[in-house]
Amino acid sequence: MVIVNFKTYLEATGKKAVELAKEADKVCRETGIAVAVAPQFTDIATIANTVSIPVFAQHVDPIQPGNHTGQILAESVKQAGAVGTLINHSERQLKLSDIDSTIRLAREKGLFSVVCGNNPSISKATAALNPDLIAVEPPELIGTGTPVSKAKPEVVTDTVRLVREVNSEVVILCGAGITRGEDVVAALKLGTQGVLVASGIVKAKNPYAIMREFAEASKR
Amino acid sequence: MVIVNFKTYLEATGKKAVELAKEADKVCRETGIAVAVAPQFTDIATIANTVSIPVFAQHVDPIQPGNHTGQILAESVKQAGAVGTLINHSERQLKLSDIDSTIRLAREKGLFSVVCGNNPSISKATAALNPDLIAVEPPELIGTGTPVSKAKPEVVTDTVRLVREVNSEVVILCGAGITRGEDVVAALKLGTQGVLVASGIVKAKNPYAIMREFAEASKR
Amino acid sequence: MVIVNFKTYLEATGKKAVELAKEADKVCRETGIAVAVAPQFTDIATIANTVSIPVFAQHVDPIQPGNHTGQILAESVKQAGAVGTLINHSERQLKLSDIDSTIRLAREKGLFSVVCGNNPSISKATAALNPDLIAVEPPELIGTGTPVSKAKPEVVTDTVRLVREVNSEVVILCGAGITRGEDVVAALKLGTQGVLVASGIVKAKNPYAIMREFAEASKR
Amino acid sequence: MVIVNFKTYLEATGKKAVELAKEADKVCRETGIAVAVAPQFTDIATIANTVSIPVFAQHVDPIQPGNHTGQILAESVKQAGAVGTLINHSERQLKLSDIDSTIRLAREKGLFSVVCGNNPSISKATAALNPDLIAVEPPELIGTGTPVSKAKPEVVTDTVRLVREVNSEVVILCGAGITRGEDVVAALKLGTQGVLVASGIVKAKNPYAIMREFAEASKR
Repeated sequence: MVIVNFKTYLEATGKKAVELAKEADKVCRETGIAVAVAPQFTDIATIANTVSIPVFAQHVDPIQPGNHTGQILAESVKQAGAVGTLINHSERQLKLSDIDSTIRLAREKGLFSVVCGNNPSISKATAALNPDLIAVEPPELIGTGTPVSKAKPEVVTDTVRLVREVNSEVVILCGAGITRGEDVVAALKLGTQGVLVASGIVKAKNPYAIMREFAEASKR
Repeated sequence: MVIVNFKTYLEATGKKAVELAKEADKVCRETGIAVAVAPQFTDIATIANTVSIPVFAQHVDPIQPGNHTGQILAESVKQAGAVGTLINHSERQLKLSDIDSTIRLAREKGLFSVVCGNNPSISKATAALNPDLIAVEPPELIGTGTPVSKAKPEVVTDTVRLVREVNSEVVILCGAGITRGEDVVAALKLGTQGVLVASGIVKAKNPYAIMREFAEASKR
Repeated sequence: MVIVNFKTYLEATGKKAVELAKEADKVCRETGIAVAVAPQFTDIATIANTVSIPVFAQHVDPIQPGNHTGQILAESVKQAGAVGTLINHSERQLKLSDIDSTIRLAREKGLFSVVCGNNPSISKATAALNPDLIAVEPPELIGTGTPVSKAKPEVVTDTVRLVREVNSEVVILCGAGITRGEDVVAALKLGTQGVLVASGIVKAKNPYAIMREFAEASKR
Repeated sequence: MVIVNFKTYLEATGKKAVELAKEADKVCRETGIAVAVAPQFTDIATIANTVSIPVFAQHVDPIQPGNHTGQILAESVKQAGAVGTLINHSERQLKLSDIDSTIRLAREKGLFSVVCGNNPSISKATAALNPDLIAVEPPELIGTGTPVSKAKPEVVTDTVRLVREVNSEVVILCGAGITRGEDVVAALKLGTQGVLVASGIVKAKNPYAIMREFAEASKR
């Protein structure tokens, strides 16, 4: 599985976000590999109406419907067409009790939860909260083009080992610095089940080609 | 001017948000009074594509495009069709320097800024930052159905007086507890130029009727 | 073990904080039971110079020495005489990665870490981060006088069970609503090793008597 | 007036904080210039008991006595001997409504309020909230050794001008990058009434000599 995080890149905002999602959709149809996208909130509805691949929100607030001006309601991203949400990305970190509440809220509303963790012990801690997926992303490697699977393979293997001590079912994704098909292969060999990627695709000259490369690598 | 804040009410989420915006649009066409809406981020694009009244975001983060997962980029709400944004609503309060940055950012991106303030001296402070509009909303009255213009008229008149000491141009809106046409009349008489309203319309049995009442009251 | 959290009660500020700490010290000498105190930052030094019982900080920021105006440096509470710190109290909640960083920092600086958790799964998550002690405090019971051991004994037993799945060594404290010796007895019977208490002692007419009652109960 | 912010520098923690405060006290006695210190919370009591110069807290939370574990109660710093507090330092920024609340709280408890601002318009905004003192500190110059009075004199003069439009009484301090007596002279010439300084003194080889230099410069 590949999740493409659009972050707040201009290359993945508005019409460009829809274009990028269409290319991910094409790769998915061509290869049979699940390529999901996590666009900005304002683009979820248009993208979900345009493509058939899974769409994730980048964040959801641990709130119920009501007077919460400016916050992100789970129902709002669900009704817009999202099937899940990232939680606690290193660029949008949450209090521990809010991570717990948001995972429960996502489950209650029928949204997949993808909780990000900075290091192996944090990933173990989040695994104890029973999310659907976990993504390990050392913040110091985000956006560097140096994949964690290469720079710090022990971070990935330690994460897999510690997470499995407390949770045998959660899907583990590998993130940070992934830019090539071989990085995906390495991530899968280290025991993860997919990748979370952002600039490696969004900022690529030819995002379609890279997503295609990632998908092919996932098949090996 | 009337701005309807949809907050995160289920009655104003997804399809229901579009319906409510259509009714506001109808009132605007019938009465000639500017009725703007501030829906959730996920609904901005669909609403802006459906109606011709102004659409506001409920919040924008003081960020530039880039790696800011889960945050609200000014360009994203602009491209989705918003013409402005609420800033520092009492349910989404900001650090002072972020209010300043967001007002500047909004101007730079061509978005109107509507900064909310809790009390007269805070409103004066925000007026010093030169936003386009200011909304005075005593948080203790939000959602009560008791309008500030009735419960605490001096809050409104003090706000107008203090704001005008530092800023002769900013448009002043009155918020909190407004549910009837006469509340709008009272707000205008106290020296404001419009109202910011949420539950009074969103939670009304017949939002169209109330918006119409507000619009008629604005004409007096 | 009994830890008395002074919070920001006036009854436990300044000279009154020193008086309360002296009474805890007296109970400790009389009963041999470890009674620790967690006063406000400003009172740590005076208390640590006056009594011989352990003194804890109520919070420490995950920072290194440097330019962090207004924050709490681990070295500052250590040099003032504290032997440990509360972390992530429900009234001072932290981001998950900051809990992890603060636990590591405390260990590095020779401070005991007492991490608070709202519910059993959160306590399990924090146990995965290897703090020295964990305190389970359902926030809805804090300050009520209804002990968690009575209102929700399953919260305590679930916490003990889940925490032990990932950590066999961490000391588990029971908090929230404890006001009588029998609450302490109940907490210990449910599998915890001590209590974290605040208003039950600080707001008591005779704090000395209650601490004495707690200490006697701990012996049983 | 000179306020020395000890931040969380190890050179100004614990015993070293007391030593530094003693040297400031000595400079004050020798020159007659008011040199105040803003140490960490844990050091306020010891310093206030040792010296006769004014002691400030670096921050106070906008709370009343009660259940606020880990927060800074105004009464606690007051009882420890502080006569005032910094508010909204760029390293401890607050929401606008909390700045307003803290200024009111400080006045109510008899503490001087020193509100920091990043730029001229923010300083004008804070001046509208009627604090006792304002300190203008462009964050990009903090700790650089390049004084704002030299790098950006217009920031200081703009601040003075804008602040005076709304507040004729507030004392204006100049901060960021001040390391020499001539920087103090320049700051005063630009229309401020004193300086807020940190690393320029705390990190100096001979803090006493620098404070003495500052004091002499203030007399000119």
